[in-house]
Amino acid sequence: MARIDYVDDPNAPAANSVVPSVVAIVTDDQGRVLLIHKTDNDLWALPGGGHEIGESIADTVVREVKEETGYDVVVDRVTGLYTNPRHVMAYDDGEVRQQFSIAFRARLRGGSPQTSSESKAVEWVAPHHIDTLPLHPSMRLRIVHALEDRHTPYVG
Amino acid sequence: MARIDYVDDPNAPAANSVVPSVVAIVTDDQGRVLLIHKTDNDLWALPGGGHEIGESIADTVVREVKEETGYDVVVDRVTGLYTNPRHVMAYDDGEVRQQFSIAFRARLRGGSPQTSSESKAVEWVAPHHIDTLPLHPSMRLRIVHALEDRHTPYVG
Repeated sequence: MARIDYVDDPNAPAANSVVPSVVAIVTDDQGRVLLIHKTDNDLWALPGGGHEIGESIADTVVREVKEETGYDVVVDRVTGLYTNPRHVMAYDDGEVRQQFSIAFRARLRGGSPQTSSESKAVEWVAPHHIDTLPLHPSMRLRIVHALEDRHTPYVG
Repeated sequence: MARIDYVDDPNAPAANSVVPSVVAIVTDDQGRVLLIHKTDNDLWALPGGGHEIGESIADTVVREVKEETGYDVVVDRVTGLYTNPRHVMAYDDGEVRQQFSIAFRARLRGGSPQTSSESKAVEWVAPHHIDTLPLHPSMRLRIVHALEDRHTPYVG
């Protein structure tokens, strides 16, 4: 499914949906960050996705990281809430979803890298190399906030 | 609208909805906590309510506290995520909402106490006195977590 992000765009379509979503910041013992190359918008991103009925939010993190990367993780702590109403994502089925993303540090427990229909590549990327990859600015911000070890989670 | 909470109840109806919601923990200079006496389930509770399209999550906190208590607040920090899929709230219009609540410390900025259709009383209550009031256990837990100044927010 194709997806277009609009941020602070007066021509953005009006949001008609809010789905709590998650992203996971997982690092390896060299400090590299687990990223996927997304199929829906061709950008690199943190693994993550939408909460489903019947799950706790930590369950969502574990399931989405497994689905998109092949790795098993456990949630460590929340690092930020990203709920900018001027950031909407339009999907080609007519859904226009307002940003509502919760970012978590998560710890690697097992598994091995595996691509999926949503992720055409799964890579561990050093922070200085992330700067050279195409990522949505809001995704870059979540990585920065998670790696700077803020005293309290970002609320925005 | 009447509401019934079910926690870990095999006879609970199946959830058909998830709405990100907030509660606010606001204290005065004596350490008393701002509580409301709810009309929907006759319990005492933290002010709060559901996120609406077009708002950031901090906007939701400010709006709900104003609507239910008459006070103006600003969000300070997140203190916990409460997303137990075995806690559902059944409303008399058929909605069965799965718990998805984000708790925030918020600071008082102004306003004066005012009841509403959702709150028949608005009171500042000392922590030791909260123990004697009827509150849902999940609400009591959010107050405990917020007042104990955890190093990182609760995730559950």
